Amino acid sequence: MTGPRPKIVIVGAGFGGLAAARHLAAAPVDITVFDRTNHHLFQPLLYQVATAALAPTDIASPIRSLLSKYPNVEVQLAEIVGVDRVARTVAPRHGAPIPFDYLVLATGSVASWFGHDDWQHHSFGLKTLVQATRIRQNLLAAFERAERATDPADIARLLTFVVVGGGPSGVELAGSIRELADATLRRDFRRIDPPQARILLFEAGPALLAGFPDRLSRYAKARLERMGVEIRTGAAVDSVDASGVVVAGQPIPSANVFWCAGVAATPAATWLGVHPAAHGTVPVQPDCSIPGAPDIFAIGDLSAFPGPGGKPLPGVAPVAEQQGRYVAGVIAARVAGRPPPPPFRYRDRGSLAVIGRAAAVADLPHAKLTGFLAWLMWSGVHLFLLNGLRNRILVYVQWFWAWLTYSRGARVIEGDPFQDTGP
Amino acid sequence: MTGPRPKIVIVGAGFGGLAAARHLAAAPVDITVFDRTNHHLFQPLLYQVATAALAPTDIASPIRSLLSKYPNVEVQLAEIVGVDRVARTVAPRHGAPIPFDYLVLATGSVASWFGHDDWQHHSFGLKTLVQATRIRQNLLAAFERAERATDPADIARLLTFVVVGGGPSGVELAGSIRELADATLRRDFRRIDPPQARILLFEAGPALLAGFPDRLSRYAKARLERMGVEIRTGAAVDSVDASGVVVAGQPIPSANVFWCAGVAATPAATWLGVHPAAHGTVPVQPDCSIPGAPDIFAIGDLSAFPGPGGKPLPGVAPVAEQQGRYVAGVIAARVAGRPPPPPFRYRDRGSLAVIGRAAAVADLPHAKLTGFLAWLMWSGVHLFLLNGLRNRILVYVQWFWAWLTYSRGARVIEGDPFQDTGP
Repeated sequence: MTGPRPKIVIVGAGFGGLAAARHLAAAPVDITVFDRTNHHLFQPLLYQVATAALAPTDIASPIRSLLSKYPNVEVQLAEIVGVDRVARTVAPRHGAPIPFDYLVLATGSVASWFGHDDWQHHSFGLKTLVQATRIRQNLLAAFERAERATDPADIARLLTFVVVGGGPSGVELAGSIRELADATLRRDFRRIDPPQARILLFEAGPALLAGFPDRLSRYAKARLERMGVEIRTGAAVDSVDASGVVVAGQPIPSANVFWCAGVAATPAATWLGVHPAAHGTVPVQPDCSIPGAPDIFAIGDLSAFPGPGGKPLPGVAPVAEQQGRYVAGVIAARVAGRPPPPPFRYRDRGSLAVIGRAAAVADLPHAKLTGFLAWLMWSGVHLFLLNGLRNRILVYVQWFWAWLTYSRGARVIEGDPFQDTGP
Repeated sequence: MTGPRPKIVIVGAGFGGLAAARHLAAAPVDITVFDRTNHHLFQPLLYQVATAALAPTDIASPIRSLLSKYPNVEVQLAEIVGVDRVARTVAPRHGAPIPFDYLVLATGSVASWFGHDDWQHHSFGLKTLVQATRIRQNLLAAFERAERATDPADIARLLTFVVVGGGPSGVELAGSIRELADATLRRDFRRIDPPQARILLFEAGPALLAGFPDRLSRYAKARLERMGVEIRTGAAVDSVDASGVVVAGQPIPSANVFWCAGVAATPAATWLGVHPAAHGTVPVQPDCSIPGAPDIFAIGDLSAFPGPGGKPLPGVAPVAEQQGRYVAGVIAARVAGRPPPPPFRYRDRGSLAVIGRAAAVADLPHAKLTGFLAWLMWSGVHLFLLNGLRNRILVYVQWFWAWLTYSRGARVIEGDPFQDTGP
């Protein structure tokens, strides 16, 4: 596998890394893809794993099988912990450094508590499969504990679900918990009444779904409120501890605090020794390369690419995917001695956020949709983007079934629901 | 919910406990079902979870939703740790004892190492969802570790899969691992060749599938051997440790020892203070009650019910299910003041074991089938017996898909595959 062919190292097999690998596979290069996990994760549906609507494996595909048909692509299950720009190597946690001719960093982002590291011991992030499974566990166990509790204050605390952050993840999670309590669990308990559960959604900014047009964000708020989600905008969290949250001076006892308020880039800026942009992101050139290192690229959530008006592009899958494809083209051109492609431009096809059963918002270039039509579009787009026909069929069957019956298929608590393990 | 109505306590929501609850739900009684987990587990397909063919949630259904339509049935998620025969109460691990008028013990069995408790630290049992997930984890991680290993002895040890026990579980697991290595993983690695993995099946007795007619057990052996499983009958395990197993004096280095050699009953005999029968089972009367305690019943894997020729009935789902229905009838008759039904008789509708793709054996009252026809029957029966249409559709889709493409949908390693956590 060694020889005169340029060696491409791609770190991270999310939307960006996977697109880069696939679009480089036809070039005369040898590619190694590193990931800490053995699976590519379809993050847009993570909230459905968190709320027991889908199984973790429904939205996770083995990276090896996604790339097995390309003989020049090798997958290595290893965590990369550093980059040596001079020696041109990446360092895995265990074993010898790996040399590269071109490096694509696509390591993504993680949940961030903005420096309040103690808050993360008392609230659940939602960026990884493990975090989603922990939310599912905590959510289902809360109802079980409440069923067995006798002190009304305990029961109220167990049945208060706080979602912090009114972006798409927070909106989707809050809506989905509301439906779980109101419909799925409705008849399953004898002492508590699941529809009595309180779901609170806090957003520090003035509106939900910042970045969406006003009309859509107002629709989302009205719709969630009609479903029974209590929403407070302009409400920053003062503190999070074992008893719950304090918001705008008011303590809210809760055993279930879900943190959707922000993300930070993975620490690749530190590896590279570059001064990070906002939230630890890596500033990049118009061709997605690092200033002063034309053979090293940073894409997706990790990078700060100046978008329209100078604002960095959002950390969403289409940006990562388009950048992955783009840097594949840059590298292929370089290897072939062709002139480089023009600077990267993000083609924004629109944004979607789902609120609940048959309700979503769609902010498209030529239309702003709400309600059932937006929801149909959301379903179709997400099914289409899922990797693999098998997962598409499985997810479709489960959505259709849930839509008919209000039931959810992944209501399994693993381990002891009465042992407080925390996030 | 209290009052003059007799209080029935059912411990365990497996096939037996669930059948008892459902068939008693129409009687004028109040029923409480206890289980340590929140889900009923379809154990016959556990090996498919262990080999990444199905997700854990595909074969697990929430007990609450299975019983939610019966207003007189309450489900409690709690582990029972004792029975007071005099006070007529059961003791949960936490909280006050729970009184009963009638008690149905259906706590099942666990993997048993026959007193070699140290062996269980180096081999994986396959009786619970957690155990199945651990096998999946270990199995998938073994290939990942081998891909990264450099020492040929390490690689050989990682790619040697030892299944101990040639009953249906062992046969099914060995065949399924063989297909995983030969087909599913075939093209996914660059340094190792997954079809080179060795799968060894050891059985201490003279033949595989003891209890099945000779012809079927010979077919199973020949078929597995043709698939490439190395089978040794009459081969008892001398020891199991971190390096592998010793069988008939010969050490076999293996990082993957799967224990399907035996089960033991849960400790209800100790709770009751009765002298246990073989493997800790509870001896019962012809009406499934405990000698001297006509209001306490033991059913399913937990009990030793004398079958044809005095041999205890096998620990299989149909026995548990029929006994559950039967004791429901006994209790309903007692409550209504009707004469008791005649002694329990097991209606043996036959036994099935699956070997691999389109290959199974069926030992039916009037026919002994092998091959594709037996496999069709096995698939049909198992789909039919799964709880809930949703799980049936999901499992069907996944089987059909796997049958077409040889791929498997649950190839997710959670946590660090290079950290040796053991069984």
